[in-house]
Amino acid sequence: MTLLHPDRLFPAEPGTRAIARELYEAVKDAPIISPHGHCEPKWFAENAPFPDPARLFVVPDHYIFRMLVSQGVPMTDLGVPRVDGGETSQDARRIWRLFAEHYHLFRGTPTRMWVDHAFETVFGVTERLTADNADRIYDQIAERLTDDDYRPRALFDRFNIQLLATTDGALDDLTHHKTIRESGWGGNVVPTYRPDAVMDPEYEGFAENVEQLGRLTGEDTATWDGYLAAHRKRRAYFQEFGATATDHGHLTARTENLPPDQCGVLFEKCVSGRATADEADAFRAQMLTEMARMSVEDGMTLQIHAGSVRNHSADVMAKHGRDKGFDIPQRTDYVHALRPLLDAVGMEPNLTVIPFTLDETVYSRELAPLAGVYPALTLGPPWWFYDSFEGMMRFREQTGETAGIYNTAGFNDDTRAFCSIPARHDVARRADCHWLSTLVADHRIGKDEAHEMAAALTNGLVKKAYNL
Amino acid sequence: MTLLHPDRLFPAEPGTRAIARELYEAVKDAPIISPHGHCEPKWFAENAPFPDPARLFVVPDHYIFRMLVSQGVPMTDLGVPRVDGGETSQDARRIWRLFAEHYHLFRGTPTRMWVDHAFETVFGVTERLTADNADRIYDQIAERLTDDDYRPRALFDRFNIQLLATTDGALDDLTHHKTIRESGWGGNVVPTYRPDAVMDPEYEGFAENVEQLGRLTGEDTATWDGYLAAHRKRRAYFQEFGATATDHGHLTARTENLPPDQCGVLFEKCVSGRATADEADAFRAQMLTEMARMSVEDGMTLQIHAGSVRNHSADVMAKHGRDKGFDIPQRTDYVHALRPLLDAVGMEPNLTVIPFTLDETVYSRELAPLAGVYPALTLGPPWWFYDSFEGMMRFREQTGETAGIYNTAGFNDDTRAFCSIPARHDVARRADCHWLSTLVADHRIGKDEAHEMAAALTNGLVKKAYNL
Amino acid sequence: MTLLHPDRLFPAEPGTRAIARELYEAVKDAPIISPHGHCEPKWFAENAPFPDPARLFVVPDHYIFRMLVSQGVPMTDLGVPRVDGGETSQDARRIWRLFAEHYHLFRGTPTRMWVDHAFETVFGVTERLTADNADRIYDQIAERLTDDDYRPRALFDRFNIQLLATTDGALDDLTHHKTIRESGWGGNVVPTYRPDAVMDPEYEGFAENVEQLGRLTGEDTATWDGYLAAHRKRRAYFQEFGATATDHGHLTARTENLPPDQCGVLFEKCVSGRATADEADAFRAQMLTEMARMSVEDGMTLQIHAGSVRNHSADVMAKHGRDKGFDIPQRTDYVHALRPLLDAVGMEPNLTVIPFTLDETVYSRELAPLAGVYPALTLGPPWWFYDSFEGMMRFREQTGETAGIYNTAGFNDDTRAFCSIPARHDVARRADCHWLSTLVADHRIGKDEAHEMAAALTNGLVKKAYNL
Repeated sequence: MTLLHPDRLFPAEPGTRAIARELYEAVKDAPIISPHGHCEPKWFAENAPFPDPARLFVVPDHYIFRMLVSQGVPMTDLGVPRVDGGETSQDARRIWRLFAEHYHLFRGTPTRMWVDHAFETVFGVTERLTADNADRIYDQIAERLTDDDYRPRALFDRFNIQLLATTDGALDDLTHHKTIRESGWGGNVVPTYRPDAVMDPEYEGFAENVEQLGRLTGEDTATWDGYLAAHRKRRAYFQEFGATATDHGHLTARTENLPPDQCGVLFEKCVSGRATADEADAFRAQMLTEMARMSVEDGMTLQIHAGSVRNHSADVMAKHGRDKGFDIPQRTDYVHALRPLLDAVGMEPNLTVIPFTLDETVYSRELAPLAGVYPALTLGPPWWFYDSFEGMMRFREQTGETAGIYNTAGFNDDTRAFCSIPARHDVARRADCHWLSTLVADHRIGKDEAHEMAAALTNGLVKKAYNL
Repeated sequence: MTLLHPDRLFPAEPGTRAIARELYEAVKDAPIISPHGHCEPKWFAENAPFPDPARLFVVPDHYIFRMLVSQGVPMTDLGVPRVDGGETSQDARRIWRLFAEHYHLFRGTPTRMWVDHAFETVFGVTERLTADNADRIYDQIAERLTDDDYRPRALFDRFNIQLLATTDGALDDLTHHKTIRESGWGGNVVPTYRPDAVMDPEYEGFAENVEQLGRLTGEDTATWDGYLAAHRKRRAYFQEFGATATDHGHLTARTENLPPDQCGVLFEKCVSGRATADEADAFRAQMLTEMARMSVEDGMTLQIHAGSVRNHSADVMAKHGRDKGFDIPQRTDYVHALRPLLDAVGMEPNLTVIPFTLDETVYSRELAPLAGVYPALTLGPPWWFYDSFEGMMRFREQTGETAGIYNTAGFNDDTRAFCSIPARHDVARRADCHWLSTLVADHRIGKDEAHEMAAALTNGLVKKAYNL
Repeated sequence: MTLLHPDRLFPAEPGTRAIARELYEAVKDAPIISPHGHCEPKWFAENAPFPDPARLFVVPDHYIFRMLVSQGVPMTDLGVPRVDGGETSQDARRIWRLFAEHYHLFRGTPTRMWVDHAFETVFGVTERLTADNADRIYDQIAERLTDDDYRPRALFDRFNIQLLATTDGALDDLTHHKTIRESGWGGNVVPTYRPDAVMDPEYEGFAENVEQLGRLTGEDTATWDGYLAAHRKRRAYFQEFGATATDHGHLTARTENLPPDQCGVLFEKCVSGRATADEADAFRAQMLTEMARMSVEDGMTLQIHAGSVRNHSADVMAKHGRDKGFDIPQRTDYVHALRPLLDAVGMEPNLTVIPFTLDETVYSRELAPLAGVYPALTLGPPWWFYDSFEGMMRFREQTGETAGIYNTAGFNDDTRAFCSIPARHDVARRADCHWLSTLVADHRIGKDEAHEMAAALTNGLVKKAYNL
């Protein structure tokens, strides 16, 4: 019995499937490069065992618990932590049973593929999860988790991860990264500079955060110039720990390119709390351009994750806080939004700006045409709800003809579900080989080219995009 | 000779086709459940014969006559009724010939499949309609229509319809439904509460409609509370006749969740004719939330059909009135529009709100993410222009990975073309089996799962969504 | 060795591929009708040899040089002309080598297919271009270009072009067209009336252009009526040279239908330079409706190319000017935008208005529903970034079920790359046959119908749409 068919996600037509198999065979064992994600550096610093199957698979993974919530299962029954002081289930086995009873909901979703892949390849589970075998599988995984071979570092090595980037606040002291570096363990875990808390005037505690940025760097962050200088120092600090990229999560992709004196005035309004909503937005927009300018100087890649309406349910936000599956995409413009930044630095040949989108309509209309002409732009892979087989197909079909593959950045797993990393990269490799096999089958490219492209999509492009 | 190939709409690749066939075989004969549509209850109350082929197929079906109009055939030549007192063709045979001469226009459209299906399965016509055989086919259908076996109730039974919901104004006395119930005939025809005329301040005669609502219910509909109470009574009245759902046709999906006192003020402005366009819109928006609250109380499913710009041609509207094929979709937002309603009742586990859309871009970006987390939301099937093979494929491919199938509501035929009902359900079943067969073929799901999913898509989900 | 596989772009499934082959076989040799494009009439008037491989393939083709620019190759290294007086490479061989070194960037793009097709069918090159064979291929093409058989007229004949429309300013005296007509050469090259310079108040030199329009026609273009009369005369002048269409490139698809007195006031503001941005936009919008009214009179087809944000990079615009690959699509509305024009003339059975779009989201949502009911509307083929295999598939899949094929206008190559014309038409024919073969394979249409549709898509529809 097995959960994973060797031909999964390949085209049904036998001739094309054979091509996909051949391409996949050549890239399937390539090391994993994960240049953007949300794993905790603490896991690798402390190397403590993961607690139990429910807290490994269900409780922290919004892909999973949101689906159960959508069918009426209360979050508290699933052990999702509360911020309002109320109770939430602590019964790991009961949480697991709920997951198992509802596992059919994931039919046809990427989550199903990720979980099955982790079950079989990480924990040796080869039965499909059901209400009936829930306890048995729980026990099997729970037992493995007590084994040292299932601690974070051992799994990291077993997963053949060549590099894993975490995402870290600008004020983070990177203690865990320091610990990892000093531990003698060979795993390459690097931070990413994510300065939302000191760049977004509407972020909780923005003014104090900016002050703290000053204290950390010895710069006078009460002034625009000092504030910029402080960013430069923090970026350099992150680079010491191997960071090669920054990351920015904004509601829109708006950028601005204002004259320095206007920037100063805007900054002052923001730190003094007198900025209007539009001014705050303009400040965030301006800061993307400033970050891009610093990237030209220090070589860090700039990632823009735009378009998520965060915390859509006020009720869930009040009870459970952020990142609980209630972030919903909205229509997002790039053609006008990115123009100021591109006017400033878009023709820089050595800059890499990576836009991500949750609005697939921009693939062919805006992002591919932009990336297909501006040297500074490289397209991020399908993100979040689109980190899926169909999502990847649409991305390639809708960007490939205008931007080609060489203006794209390879794959990002972008996950906080550590055990899903091999599964996600495997799905991406299979999807890429599927797509390439169709181009070979209808003679748009030669098989020799497809092999080169598969290698590029697996590792070449991500290394280039993130300067690895 | 035959019009219908047994493998139509199945994948071309033989292995996948075999899977599709097997899945379809198990669901093809399941009874039809039609929880939303526009058949006339009068047909089943009176059970009079349908008049003639042209008045059955062409004159009342905007899918058909709009295509001929697009190629320059005047509506009056097609017998489309006029509201301006002018003449329109009464010559059924001449209308039919026009239809036959232009039948090639429908190549590749769902209409072609529906008509061929009705021709062959209902009327035994097995030749493709052409100018040459137009008269012969006309005669064949006309002759059958004189037969008692072709009256509405007989066809209803022959079509194996388990339930058919009509759409009825809030002020409708449901006489025909009463007649059906009292007739002793076993057909299950139920009404749907569609209160646009008493909920939309811009509806013709709104104020008088609201007064009439008061008279019908004995409530004081001059007050906000009385108005709401009147809705409650009418909903209960509809439920007596088997209604399990309400339906709302709005230009946008806007909802509001205003405090009661503001609602009262808004209501007063609307009934007194002093509301601005935006206030009228806010009132409609607020009423969706009120309807949802009542649904929590009385268990009725709430359907929102949003995004159609009605009566696009002023000229056609003046000559022929509403529903004449000149309703054109517009870009529609759901993520912001539904938020107030979802804040109010989105986490209710026993409420079912079904959004429909004419803007396919929201499938993956907004609707699937929303339905994949809010317990109260269930996605309506592809609507109107998307009630088609390609439309259904896009719907599954673009919602299935985020919402799965279990947050969708099965199929709606939404038609006023009675004879097309079996055809439309057959297309939906074939499309679902096609889609499922591709997931089996590339090993995303097992065949056992596909069988369960096919059954759910055919009947299980629609029963759940409409409390049947 | 060969670059072109006979089955390229056909479905992989053998049964479906056989159908596609059969359909293609019947249309592949049909003459080319090119009713919209940007070839220079001068080429055919003077019939001078094309200069060299780089200036034929690379320098004038923004599809090609933009891809190299996107990877950091400076425009000046590619010989792209400058408007700022700076230097640009004049070394054709060096430009060619750059092209060859970067040829892998085009893998999977339509450009790759076009270039390979031109290489093999026009120049007998059967090796894939690489850095290694760059010089050899350069020499081979360069040598051919010195041959009289490779002059524009000879190629025109060899390409089997039945009609080629150029695009010409309203003030153009059509000298080259006159020369062609008087030359005795049989090639049918006709102009298209493109009056942007005298219709867009924001066009450089608009007021003077309008004056010149007056001088050319003897009309008093200081008045609204005289201005309209002047357009009528110029249209008639263009028709003398075979023109059957006008063309309009606007940022949006906005139309207006204002009363004549308001038009007069608006016109006066525009020519006197006192129009606001919105008034200028309203004027352009009104003029589309005026052009449509003139089309009802004189039978010319009206083409609207909307939605391109031109010259996105201010820097590139300053250095290199217009049409340098920096035109990026934006979200575009048609349902509201076209309504005034359609209210005025949409029901005219003999008018043909052809909208083109760079926003694929409107295919199924707006354009197909509009074209599927208004007699005056016919959909233009996939444009620019969508003149590609995947783009064509999406167009058919997303418009075919609502508008059918008979409300579409066949293929446009819309190119200034003369040698790519046969390639582009070949891709379109293959894509159409691919699409039709899938409809035959799943029994949506019969093979006899597919043959008729393939012929219509190849030549029938374009002749009808452009009155040829």
